[in-house]
Amino acid sequence: MRTYTVAILGATGAVGTRLMEQLEQSTIPVSSVKLLASKGSAGKTLTFKEEDVVIEEATPEAFDGVDIVLASAGGSVSKRLLPEAVKRGAVCIDNTSAFRMEPDVPLVVPEVNPEQLRHHHGIIANPNCSTIQMVVALKPLAERFGLNQVIVSTYQAASGAGQSALNEFFEQSQAYLDNRRMEANILPTKGDKKHYPLAFNLLPQIDVFEDDGYTHEEWKMIHETKKIMRNDMNDSKLKVTATCVRVPVPISHGESVYVELNNKNATVADVFNALGTGEGIILEDDPSHQVYPQPLNAEGKRDTFVGRIRADKENPGAFNLWVVSDNLLKGAAWNTVEIAERLVAGDLVHVK
Amino acid sequence: MRTYTVAILGATGAVGTRLMEQLEQSTIPVSSVKLLASKGSAGKTLTFKEEDVVIEEATPEAFDGVDIVLASAGGSVSKRLLPEAVKRGAVCIDNTSAFRMEPDVPLVVPEVNPEQLRHHHGIIANPNCSTIQMVVALKPLAERFGLNQVIVSTYQAASGAGQSALNEFFEQSQAYLDNRRMEANILPTKGDKKHYPLAFNLLPQIDVFEDDGYTHEEWKMIHETKKIMRNDMNDSKLKVTATCVRVPVPISHGESVYVELNNKNATVADVFNALGTGEGIILEDDPSHQVYPQPLNAEGKRDTFVGRIRADKENPGAFNLWVVSDNLLKGAAWNTVEIAERLVAGDLVHVK
Repeated sequence: MRTYTVAILGATGAVGTRLMEQLEQSTIPVSSVKLLASKGSAGKTLTFKEEDVVIEEATPEAFDGVDIVLASAGGSVSKRLLPEAVKRGAVCIDNTSAFRMEPDVPLVVPEVNPEQLRHHHGIIANPNCSTIQMVVALKPLAERFGLNQVIVSTYQAASGAGQSALNEFFEQSQAYLDNRRMEANILPTKGDKKHYPLAFNLLPQIDVFEDDGYTHEEWKMIHETKKIMRNDMNDSKLKVTATCVRVPVPISHGESVYVELNNKNATVADVFNALGTGEGIILEDDPSHQVYPQPLNAEGKRDTFVGRIRADKENPGAFNLWVVSDNLLKGAAWNTVEIAERLVAGDLVHVK
Repeated sequence: MRTYTVAILGATGAVGTRLMEQLEQSTIPVSSVKLLASKGSAGKTLTFKEEDVVIEEATPEAFDGVDIVLASAGGSVSKRLLPEAVKRGAVCIDNTSAFRMEPDVPLVVPEVNPEQLRHHHGIIANPNCSTIQMVVALKPLAERFGLNQVIVSTYQAASGAGQSALNEFFEQSQAYLDNRRMEANILPTKGDKKHYPLAFNLLPQIDVFEDDGYTHEEWKMIHETKKIMRNDMNDSKLKVTATCVRVPVPISHGESVYVELNNKNATVADVFNALGTGEGIILEDDPSHQVYPQPLNAEGKRDTFVGRIRADKENPGAFNLWVVSDNLLKGAAWNTVEIAERLVAGDLVHVK
C-alpha cells in the first residue's frame, strides 16, 4: 500500500489546528507529516497522532519528498509556494482563494463535483466556506430539478476571519457585558482601514469592497458557485446573488437560501425528499418539534444541516431553505482533507 | 388648543418604557397621562415628565375620559380592552397583532400610508417591527418604480421577544463566556414548548409555526407588507416571502432585502436617489469609507438606515438592500407615538 508524506502549510491558525485534527482522523495512510510555517513559527512543536512534530520554515525546498500539501496560510503564501511544491511533485489542496478561479484549477466539493479531481494539474482549490455549505445543499436540487436562480443572505461566524478575529470577538463580548468600551482592530476585515465591534452587532461587510458595491466575499459566493454548479450540474445559466453579513457567533455559518428551480412543478415534498438523500446533508426540519439547524449544534460536525424548507406559494418552483455548517470543518479543514481522501482513494496523487 | 389625556397600556415592558420616553419627547399636548397595567403592577409608581404617576389596574372603566390609548400589553389584553376604550370615546393605537389584519382597521406606518389614518373607527394598528422598517425602505421604490417581488431574510434582535428575553440573552452570554451551561426558558418564543440558547447562536424561529412551515413572524411580514403596500401603493400583485431569524444582538433588527421592481430599467443610481429622498430613511451607503447600517449605531434612533444598495446584474430591475432600525423605536414605540402625533395634527382624535 502506498503511504503519503503530507505537509500542512499554516498549521497554527483556526483552520490549521482543524486540518491537523481532520488529518489525524482521516483514512489517509500518512507515513509522515511536515508542518510548515513562517520563519517566526519555525522551531515550535505541535503534536500529530501523539508524536511531537517540529515546525519547519516554509521554503520551496521544504516540499522535497512531499506527496500532498494541505495549504491554509493565506493567499499570498499559496501563490508563492504551491507552484514550487507542484514542481517537486506534490499535489496541493489549497484552502485560500489564490487559485480558485483559474480555469485549469478544479474547485472541488467532493459531494458535488468529485469528477473534477481527475483533471487536476497539481493544484486543487477548496472553495470559500460560505460557498461550500450552499453548494452541498444545492447539489441534489440541481440534479433533480435544475437551478435557475439563487438568492442567498449569509449569517457568518467570527471564526471565518481567523483565530485572532475570534479572540477579539470574545474580548468585545466580555467588554460589552462589563459596560466597558469594545476594542476593534481586526473585524470586519484585517485588510481594510476601519474596524468595528462585532459583539452584539451585525457587520454587513466580509472582505473588501469591489467597485460594484458587492464585497469580495459576495463576489466569491457568486462566482465560485457558478464555477462549481454551471460546469458540473449543467445549469449553464444559473443566476446567483449574495449578501454576506458577519454575525456575533463564534463558529458555524447560517445561510438563508432562496432557490428558483427550473422545474416549476417541484413540490415542497419533492424538495424535502431530494435534500433528504443528498450526500453530506443532514435534514433538520420538523417544525412541530421545533427542529431546525442551529450553529451551536453544528459546531464540530462535518455535515451540512438543512431545514426550514418552505415553498414560496406565489412563485412556483421557488423554495426557502436554512443551511448551517461548521465553517472551519466542512467550510475549510474537512473539505480539504476530504479532497485528499478522494485523491488517495482514486490514486490521483501524482502531478501530470 | 385641544389637549389630550393619553393612556399607556403596558408601561413596564421593553416597548412600554420607550412609549413613555417617546410620548415625553412628542409634540402631543398631553394634559394628563394614565398608566394602565395588570392588577399585579397596579399601585407602583413611574415617572412621566418628572412627575410620579401611579399605575392603575386596566379595567374597562379606567378608559373613561381617555382620548388616546397607546397599547402594548399583549394581543389578548388589546382584544379584550380596546373595544371597551373605543366605546368610551378613546382612539387606540395598538402595538399588538390583535387587530392588524381586520379589514376595517388601518395598519399604518406614517411615512408609508398616512392617508389610512382618516379611515379609522377607533382602532389603528401598528405593524410588526420587522414589517415597519422594511416598508419604510420599500415606499420610495414602490412609488417610483412599482414593486413586483420582495424576498427578505431578517436578523432580529433579542429585545423583539420582550424584556425578559433580553435579560435571558445577556445571562446566557455571560454564562457562555464563563464556560457555564446556558439556561433557556423563554427564547425562541415564550408560547412554544422547547427553548434554546440565543447567545452565540442563531435561532431560525420567531413566534410559533404555521401549518405550511412558515413561522407566524414570517406570515406577519408577508401579509402585513401586502396589506400596507398593495392597498396603498397600487402594487396589487406584490409578492412577498420571508425567512425570519433571531440573532444574538440586543437591539435593532437587520434585514437583507431583495426587491424586484416593476420598472426593469431602474438603475442602481435611480434606486440610490429614490431611497435618499425617502421619508424616515437615512442612507448609510459608502463602501469606500466602509459606511453601512449597523445595529449598534441605530440603537436609540427613530430612523430607518439603508445601505449596501447593489444591482443584481443578472436580473434587470432587481436590487439587494441592507436595512437596519431600532426595533423598539421605529419598530414599536416611536411608530405608535408618531401615529398619535399625526392623529393630533390632523384632528383625527375622535371615534366615528
